[in-house]
Amino acid sequence: MQRQPARKKSSQALLLVDIVNHFEFPDGDKILKNALLLAPRLVRLKDRARRAGVPTIYVNDNFGEWHSDAAKLLAYCLRAGCPGKQFVEQIKPDEDDYCILKPMHSAFYQTPLDVLLRHLGCGAIVVAGLTTNSCILCTAHDANMRDLKLTVVSDCCAARSIHEHNEALENIREMAGGHVLLLDSLRFRR
Amino acid sequence: MQRQPARKKSSQALLLVDIVNHFEFPDGDKILKNALLLAPRLVRLKDRARRAGVPTIYVNDNFGEWHSDAAKLLAYCLRAGCPGKQFVEQIKPDEDDYCILKPMHSAFYQTPLDVLLRHLGCGAIVVAGLTTNSCILCTAHDANMRDLKLTVVSDCCAARSIHEHNEALENIREMAGGHVLLLDSLRFRR
Amino acid sequence: MQRQPARKKSSQALLLVDIVNHFEFPDGDKILKNALLLAPRLVRLKDRARRAGVPTIYVNDNFGEWHSDAAKLLAYCLRAGCPGKQFVEQIKPDEDDYCILKPMHSAFYQTPLDVLLRHLGCGAIVVAGLTTNSCILCTAHDANMRDLKLTVVSDCCAARSIHEHNEALENIREMAGGHVLLLDSLRFRR
Amino acid sequence: MQRQPARKKSSQALLLVDIVNHFEFPDGDKILKNALLLAPRLVRLKDRARRAGVPTIYVNDNFGEWHSDAAKLLAYCLRAGCPGKQFVEQIKPDEDDYCILKPMHSAFYQTPLDVLLRHLGCGAIVVAGLTTNSCILCTAHDANMRDLKLTVVSDCCAARSIHEHNEALENIREMAGGHVLLLDSLRFRR
Repeated sequence: MQRQPARKKSSQALLLVDIVNHFEFPDGDKILKNALLLAPRLVRLKDRARRAGVPTIYVNDNFGEWHSDAAKLLAYCLRAGCPGKQFVEQIKPDEDDYCILKPMHSAFYQTPLDVLLRHLGCGAIVVAGLTTNSCILCTAHDANMRDLKLTVVSDCCAARSIHEHNEALENIREMAGGHVLLLDSLRFRR
Repeated sequence: MQRQPARKKSSQALLLVDIVNHFEFPDGDKILKNALLLAPRLVRLKDRARRAGVPTIYVNDNFGEWHSDAAKLLAYCLRAGCPGKQFVEQIKPDEDDYCILKPMHSAFYQTPLDVLLRHLGCGAIVVAGLTTNSCILCTAHDANMRDLKLTVVSDCCAARSIHEHNEALENIREMAGGHVLLLDSLRFRR
Repeated sequence: MQRQPARKKSSQALLLVDIVNHFEFPDGDKILKNALLLAPRLVRLKDRARRAGVPTIYVNDNFGEWHSDAAKLLAYCLRAGCPGKQFVEQIKPDEDDYCILKPMHSAFYQTPLDVLLRHLGCGAIVVAGLTTNSCILCTAHDANMRDLKLTVVSDCCAARSIHEHNEALENIREMAGGHVLLLDSLRFRR
Repeated sequence: MQRQPARKKSSQALLLVDIVNHFEFPDGDKILKNALLLAPRLVRLKDRARRAGVPTIYVNDNFGEWHSDAAKLLAYCLRAGCPGKQFVEQIKPDEDDYCILKPMHSAFYQTPLDVLLRHLGCGAIVVAGLTTNSCILCTAHDANMRDLKLTVVSDCCAARSIHEHNEALENIREMAGGHVLLLDSLRFRR
């Protein structure tokens, strides 16, 4: 593993959580409906990261598949008839994005995310994706316990309901030390 | 480390989170006020665990002290004039309770709790303590990711406000697979 | 993630470490030379696992690539001109094998291996692959600390030199509680 | 937890492994015999760390006790008749040393050592103690996987035999990226 050029400790990485998603699970339809509203903002978010020189890391659920094959997951989500197709095709990973598969809810639990962030020299993460009160919430607390600077882009996250979404953001702000802000207020730090 | 006598996979341990507490931190007074209401129920909860043969594990914050000295923390919290004295003296650890110090919010993060639960042969935990929307919430999600059966005793937990307490319990029930119940409904499983 | 049918706690999984390998690193040629001698035995080992109903898990280095793409790694190692081609094509993963990418030496460090073993209901592992005194040694100690029953198949592992190989096996036997045995002495336990 | 004054990434901490030891386990007598030869050098090592402003962290086995009580462990090892008394009393922790209890072999596995090193701002460790081919070896590999700079003071470590000691040091040097040197060659970096 080659060391990247040095960055400041506050250098950010953009974490997109459970974006490559088939939505084939209980309440998947409710979440998909809200996710579709996010898609244009997620595209904008990722584009701004790229222009700021901030790396993007997709962290997706392995959905019980154990072949460490992000490409196969992507193909599955983009197949004709997949509920998630319309969402995923708007915001799918580019060749130079990083991809990590997670076995459970948090992006940190039993994944190489810590190592990748060290490798990239990033001590700060900007988090967006699905769902605010499950994987985003767990990832936020795990980032906080690891002393990472944490920003959550509120209008680039979604849950089943507005209530669950708002309560989770409140918890992240109050208890996980997260900066919670709107896409328009975000300034990336390389 | 000697192996304990075999238990069933569903054997429970009682986790008391941040009970040995000095309450000398921001909003500590609000939490203490609510904690004092819990104290008699916590005593009852622990007593029932003991009679059911279920081990009790205290998991306390090391509060930035790094001497792995649970006895010193207890003495500090029981000293004259400590805000937490009245609470802690009601529910302090007994000689045969287990004590773990945690450096961060979750009872699992960088602590030997996983090893202790394996050692005890427990695949299920009953959680109570402080605060519902911080350390209890983090511990619940971490237990869920480790496939432990999770019960949270709602009237043996407290937060700064009823709203935060209730929202956290809702999240634990909906997103961390926790059984949330009242002390009177709890039946321990050895 | 669906639960597998129940297995006994002593049910084994076969771990093949750093088998999908390009050998394009310092001393890769020395290790490849020794690895090629293993290949027929590794085929036999894997075949016996299959007939015994024991799952096979490939754990490979991500070699600094962060796309969770085991298929791409395999293709890279099988390309014309790759030093590892002759070795890898003899013992490459089958469709139903499990594949995990690891960012560092141990098969457990920041990988979902713990979760996968729980999912499979396996409390015991049989380890083979490369190299005895690095990734096999680290994996053995990590398995021991997790209370997994550990078997290392000595003539299905290799290092740069016989001396390093033998000293590592001695350490695994004496200090990591590993059963070290020859392929011909191994009996799989489902 | 208050942040320490900033240090350089290469700032060192001294790790003393399994020094507070009762030696009441199989082969404890052999290890004690070799440990007693180390004691004067360990005193010198720790004294030099102190004068260089480098913090000392004792990491000791909890020996199956689960009360996070380093003071009780120390008292046990210093009691009249304890085999370890003569060794431990020469090199026991001072009031301002850090103490961590570990449940297994590695100083990193299910302990807060990572958090403490972040808290201290140390990206480098100097390791000494017992035994070279077990806890020192595991700790060395775990430090390497965490990208910590690693120095092992060879004449401040011991094992059951010179052969095991030397082979473990060779492995640490070759496979865990450790600098292995004699006490007289060590220069602390604050």
